[in-house]
Amino acid sequence: MAAIVKNIRTEGHLIDSGLMSQIFDVIISDGGTFEVTDFQIGRNNDEFSKASLSVMCDDPVSMNTILLKLSSLGCSIDADNEVVLKPAPADGVVPPDFYSTTNHRTSVRVGGHWLEVKRLRMDGVVVVGSSPGKSMASAETMKFRDVKKDDAVVCGLSGIRVQPDFVERDRTGFSFMADEVSSERKVRLVVERVAELIGSGRKRVVCVCGPVVVHTGGSADLAALIGAGHIHAFLGGNAVAVHDIEHELYGTSLGVDLSIGSLVEMGHRNHLRAINEIWRAGSVAGLVDEGKLDSGIMHSVITSGIPYCLAGSLRDDGPLPETVTDMNEAQDQHARILQGTDIVLMLSSMLHSIAVGNMIPAEVMTICVDINPAVITKLRNRGSHQSIGVVTDVGLFLHLLADRLVRD
Amino acid sequence: MAAIVKNIRTEGHLIDSGLMSQIFDVIISDGGTFEVTDFQIGRNNDEFSKASLSVMCDDPVSMNTILLKLSSLGCSIDADNEVVLKPAPADGVVPPDFYSTTNHRTSVRVGGHWLEVKRLRMDGVVVVGSSPGKSMASAETMKFRDVKKDDAVVCGLSGIRVQPDFVERDRTGFSFMADEVSSERKVRLVVERVAELIGSGRKRVVCVCGPVVVHTGGSADLAALIGAGHIHAFLGGNAVAVHDIEHELYGTSLGVDLSIGSLVEMGHRNHLRAINEIWRAGSVAGLVDEGKLDSGIMHSVITSGIPYCLAGSLRDDGPLPETVTDMNEAQDQHARILQGTDIVLMLSSMLHSIAVGNMIPAEVMTICVDINPAVITKLRNRGSHQSIGVVTDVGLFLHLLADRLVRD
Amino acid sequence: MAAIVKNIRTEGHLIDSGLMSQIFDVIISDGGTFEVTDFQIGRNNDEFSKASLSVMCDDPVSMNTILLKLSSLGCSIDADNEVVLKPAPADGVVPPDFYSTTNHRTSVRVGGHWLEVKRLRMDGVVVVGSSPGKSMASAETMKFRDVKKDDAVVCGLSGIRVQPDFVERDRTGFSFMADEVSSERKVRLVVERVAELIGSGRKRVVCVCGPVVVHTGGSADLAALIGAGHIHAFLGGNAVAVHDIEHELYGTSLGVDLSIGSLVEMGHRNHLRAINEIWRAGSVAGLVDEGKLDSGIMHSVITSGIPYCLAGSLRDDGPLPETVTDMNEAQDQHARILQGTDIVLMLSSMLHSIAVGNMIPAEVMTICVDINPAVITKLRNRGSHQSIGVVTDVGLFLHLLADRLVRD
Amino acid sequence: MAAIVKNIRTEGHLIDSGLMSQIFDVIISDGGTFEVTDFQIGRNNDEFSKASLSVMCDDPVSMNTILLKLSSLGCSIDADNEVVLKPAPADGVVPPDFYSTTNHRTSVRVGGHWLEVKRLRMDGVVVVGSSPGKSMASAETMKFRDVKKDDAVVCGLSGIRVQPDFVERDRTGFSFMADEVSSERKVRLVVERVAELIGSGRKRVVCVCGPVVVHTGGSADLAALIGAGHIHAFLGGNAVAVHDIEHELYGTSLGVDLSIGSLVEMGHRNHLRAINEIWRAGSVAGLVDEGKLDSGIMHSVITSGIPYCLAGSLRDDGPLPETVTDMNEAQDQHARILQGTDIVLMLSSMLHSIAVGNMIPAEVMTICVDINPAVITKLRNRGSHQSIGVVTDVGLFLHLLADRLVRD
Repeated sequence: MAAIVKNIRTEGHLIDSGLMSQIFDVIISDGGTFEVTDFQIGRNNDEFSKASLSVMCDDPVSMNTILLKLSSLGCSIDADNEVVLKPAPADGVVPPDFYSTTNHRTSVRVGGHWLEVKRLRMDGVVVVGSSPGKSMASAETMKFRDVKKDDAVVCGLSGIRVQPDFVERDRTGFSFMADEVSSERKVRLVVERVAELIGSGRKRVVCVCGPVVVHTGGSADLAALIGAGHIHAFLGGNAVAVHDIEHELYGTSLGVDLSIGSLVEMGHRNHLRAINEIWRAGSVAGLVDEGKLDSGIMHSVITSGIPYCLAGSLRDDGPLPETVTDMNEAQDQHARILQGTDIVLMLSSMLHSIAVGNMIPAEVMTICVDINPAVITKLRNRGSHQSIGVVTDVGLFLHLLADRLVRD
Repeated sequence: MAAIVKNIRTEGHLIDSGLMSQIFDVIISDGGTFEVTDFQIGRNNDEFSKASLSVMCDDPVSMNTILLKLSSLGCSIDADNEVVLKPAPADGVVPPDFYSTTNHRTSVRVGGHWLEVKRLRMDGVVVVGSSPGKSMASAETMKFRDVKKDDAVVCGLSGIRVQPDFVERDRTGFSFMADEVSSERKVRLVVERVAELIGSGRKRVVCVCGPVVVHTGGSADLAALIGAGHIHAFLGGNAVAVHDIEHELYGTSLGVDLSIGSLVEMGHRNHLRAINEIWRAGSVAGLVDEGKLDSGIMHSVITSGIPYCLAGSLRDDGPLPETVTDMNEAQDQHARILQGTDIVLMLSSMLHSIAVGNMIPAEVMTICVDINPAVITKLRNRGSHQSIGVVTDVGLFLHLLADRLVRD
Repeated sequence: MAAIVKNIRTEGHLIDSGLMSQIFDVIISDGGTFEVTDFQIGRNNDEFSKASLSVMCDDPVSMNTILLKLSSLGCSIDADNEVVLKPAPADGVVPPDFYSTTNHRTSVRVGGHWLEVKRLRMDGVVVVGSSPGKSMASAETMKFRDVKKDDAVVCGLSGIRVQPDFVERDRTGFSFMADEVSSERKVRLVVERVAELIGSGRKRVVCVCGPVVVHTGGSADLAALIGAGHIHAFLGGNAVAVHDIEHELYGTSLGVDLSIGSLVEMGHRNHLRAINEIWRAGSVAGLVDEGKLDSGIMHSVITSGIPYCLAGSLRDDGPLPETVTDMNEAQDQHARILQGTDIVLMLSSMLHSIAVGNMIPAEVMTICVDINPAVITKLRNRGSHQSIGVVTDVGLFLHLLADRLVRD
Repeated sequence: MAAIVKNIRTEGHLIDSGLMSQIFDVIISDGGTFEVTDFQIGRNNDEFSKASLSVMCDDPVSMNTILLKLSSLGCSIDADNEVVLKPAPADGVVPPDFYSTTNHRTSVRVGGHWLEVKRLRMDGVVVVGSSPGKSMASAETMKFRDVKKDDAVVCGLSGIRVQPDFVERDRTGFSFMADEVSSERKVRLVVERVAELIGSGRKRVVCVCGPVVVHTGGSADLAALIGAGHIHAFLGGNAVAVHDIEHELYGTSLGVDLSIGSLVEMGHRNHLRAINEIWRAGSVAGLVDEGKLDSGIMHSVITSGIPYCLAGSLRDDGPLPETVTDMNEAQDQHARILQGTDIVLMLSSMLHSIAVGNMIPAEVMTICVDINPAVITKLRNRGSHQSIGVVTDVGLFLHLLADRLVRD
């Protein structure tokens, strides 16, 4: 049988970011073969490399899988062609051969020009439209459920260019973190670097926060960082707000995982008292206005006026009046708050962090702090190398960071 | 200062369930002292023990904490008194000294009679009302948000009787499971026992299911168990439904954690194709009706007509039309489906399992299957001893169970 | 069939230490039944409880197993009888029905008197002999391989009294550590308590140390604690000495697990240079004498003159001249060094810590520091409640401890 | 300051094995810079790539570190020069600038010829000698302690050629194992492949075995594999032999970790009875001769006559008469037994497996079976890609393997 042959091109830090190796892996493991028709290596650490390959495969289905994966890895396939646009057959439904987005910088070729795709996020589709009042078209990532009938949806792989992030060797100065095993010595070094990054005031910093921050004694330090203007938006769940307010009102939540409630701990249900008190006041903001909640994370979030969203979950007690119980609405609010963010600080909150990770471009830097190395590994494994993992007690981390940014 | 003194009574398998030791621990660790005024030990494995104690404490706040905890442990405090009822000051708001429920069998003393509290769940309040058309009052657990203004809410600790579950030594025949370290040999023994329990047809069995069931190849076996009538309701999230349908339509989801999406795997976004296909058909049921989805878990759930609920989450792609995106509504649907359940089979779904665990009385047996021992520990630690943990590959577990209940 | 009946007695903190529950568990799970013939509960936290039981079992083998286990739990069986002594048939061989020791305080009844068993350790036998120059007999624990032909070995279960350690509620002030999940806040509290315990100078403190102490930057702090006289003996393996010396001579061993040697790290084999340098000097002490090793743990051990033993292992490089390569000899040296110890500080060294745990009576307090909670759980699970587990970076722990005991 | 410049060359699967990226990483992270002077990429999956680089660095110490690491990665430095040989100054002592071995195929240039280094192992030195009765010199890896005064030891980096193993894509057919997360489905696939590899009879297979094999019920299956001639040598510790014999004689060791001995389990000290019984018979072989040990792993090892070594450890009870208590002697016996081995089957024995891993060339295939993924990761991280990790119950693995190789 005559093999299908396709020519692809790619360019970047192909070797040191491991991309070239991944490209070869993809082709071989999906049953293809390749021939490198041209290769120019970057002569030093700064220069890009360039490669041209012929990819061969007997089976059209496998060939299609290979090309989809190579596209994600930044390879251009028929890159000089126009992008293929097809109308959405109904609201929330796209054509079967839709192109799904990665979190890497993406452009599509429309009318002979490359349009950069805006509002990049993972697992969306690209819709091309004419910008109102402009002659030029624009391209935007949309969630499936936001697509309207007859929207022009990008399909197939022609005319699409993806630029994966590269391992930026030493540029961020976090190279010493590579092995993720963080002794206290290393934590101090990381905090120093994080303080430089977020202390400059030039970066938009969003904090994603789990209840462990309260349990490990980090409330006052995080509140201080918010109060001093270092955090520009706050994302969390119902639990972190409840435990923070419980802690400020009643002094409890000392390290126990209250979300489960072991038998011995059943007695002091102070998180229920806290919820009841807020419902009495009408809202968290109401309790702040009454002067009864005058410290802690939520107090600092509300008085500093930064945008925030508390997303609900199936496990919630209450929930608080502020908690957004509809998940579509919560996703939309999160996406709005995350627009234009430079750095996301993920504090011991695996699930929210994964959700947020899917909403942001790979170029947004993420700093994940968790005592559990497995969480760090999961969070870093999202195709971005702008990701720092710190295995440590989050209370200790916030204490050192506040020492450096607020108390110095 | 004169110490406060309070007399308490308790009765049950105080020693072998560890309750007596927990009672002493609570008193000492919260700063009290005690004197055992009477103790009668059960003479053999079946007899109850009885104890009367005087509890002393100088500090009224600590004394209150001690009494709250002792109440959770099944101690009666002023048990001959009437329960104290106070009107709810507003919708969703209860009096500050509300009594919060455990998941243990609870009665309240009203008009000289003990009323058993219905619709038991953790972290609710007890509301006493006159049953329509009946002369007797009734008592019911309610979530805070469901309380209406002027409902009669149980407050304080008088007139409340809690009966904790006991370690039922050898009665369930799972004593060999005690150490939770499950080799394959042990898994076969557990499956045998589970098969006897759920195969009898006399128990209502609800399954809580995570996407790992699909990744480990358990779909066909679970579908067969549902089809054969061994599972009477299905609870899960958007993800398990999406991955199940992706698996049936496109054959993928082979063990990779698709919820995160590593770089190499980005190419075959078959879960997005599956979501798009269902939206095209209007619903999962619509795709079944079209004849295009004719196998797998969701197919079996829909064709067998059992009740089910798919709860949304912040991380969802899609979500599917069937997914309940509002968390309050999802909790309410879960609670309705869980009424009258005898056994909950928790299959590799920590978060849903924790949520469900809070909704059911301690006497409902839970069987938790997960490859991660830490998950098992968390799930078992809910104050119930009717809880079996099986550390194993969930695909293997379902395979052996279907061998025994469907294919034999 | 007529059941075998045996009467047993026990006394102690039977309820709060969980012993009574364990006694019941043992009887039921091995197929017996029981009747409590007498029970007097301790009226308060300080008083002992006393119990008498009849144990019934049909099968003599199971009955024997039950009695063996009950003996370990501190129950006296035919306690008024004399102990049964039989001569060892050969060097290193004991009679088949030998009594094997636990690590709990044990006495044997000889000539109508109770002799306390000396040199207590786990998994040995008790040999009774006439002390030279004394009229009274004495009893001593021996390893099997040290028994000589015709030694009088304790057999069966008569005339043996074991006193298990009790949960000493609040006496050591470590009750806040119960759940083993240590945030940085808790670590500071533990260090404070440990400093009080070992800083008094009245306790003999032995340190068991793994190479992670060097990797986490704890060398200088541990050396300072040894130099200031707070550590009275040092136990470790070849690896900790090699990495310590490598660190002092060449500044490397920065957090990487050198014991395995990943590809990238192969280049700087400084641990081999360190070994070679010591062999050139003849010994570690020789290198200290030459003035070439003037800091670090081993320097401090040697110059302070405390006893030490470096045990070899199958994985060792070198080993160092000081390393004891024969395991029988290493066990004997360890046992000698551990005589009379009050506190063992176990620093990130699971295997040495388990070995040492078997050599010491349960009443010796152990303080285990490790970043891995699973290690702590294993080490604490040795039948002693005098055991503190601290889940933290060992470098941080030593830093705080030296701050408190040396630098203050 | 004028930078030092060094020209290096390398050749192999530089991209797909990640070597080129590692070479760049090493240079940059140790403070150097580079210029690629020539690069020829392999045009397809089978062809080698070739590279020539100029490495620049200001600091001679850093330059030396870089060159050491590059040498480990297979780069030739001054490869046309003769190797530098220096005499050992004393027994067990080598010159300070000794070259330390990796586990990768290595040659040294002597008299204008390349000699392949024999008896390759990690962390040794290379000694060049004249083979008795031959005109040509030979090169051999030696442990430091085996070097004799005046032996000709390879020093520096000139005239040394290392050939790292490459990721042999798809050649071994284990590519589906890449992510190490093994569901039961995957385990069946791996067993199939392992059976093909070791069932051919053309490979020398050595088994490294921990006591978990006994606890998970794998004894009979491993014994059957040994009896059928599929295992050609057996390496383990005292514990696996003791637990195996205990299991055969008394039927116990049911999954509990007897090496620690929890309180409840103290009663049936059958491992001590087993040790005593063997000492009575004089040896394990003696007990086999008496006909009293007629099944199990050790019985199969002894009756099949394969070479074996039981290495002692500090934690041993007994130990058995056969156990080699001196670690130098045990290492020497291990090394002798491992000569000429093609495959090492590592069964749930982290410590022995690490020790064995250091003794064998990278080209020896290792198959590691363990329920704990962290162990697999550690064992695979030894610079060899001929390494398969299977995360599963070892009892299940052996059961399936014996099904395939013995019972089919």
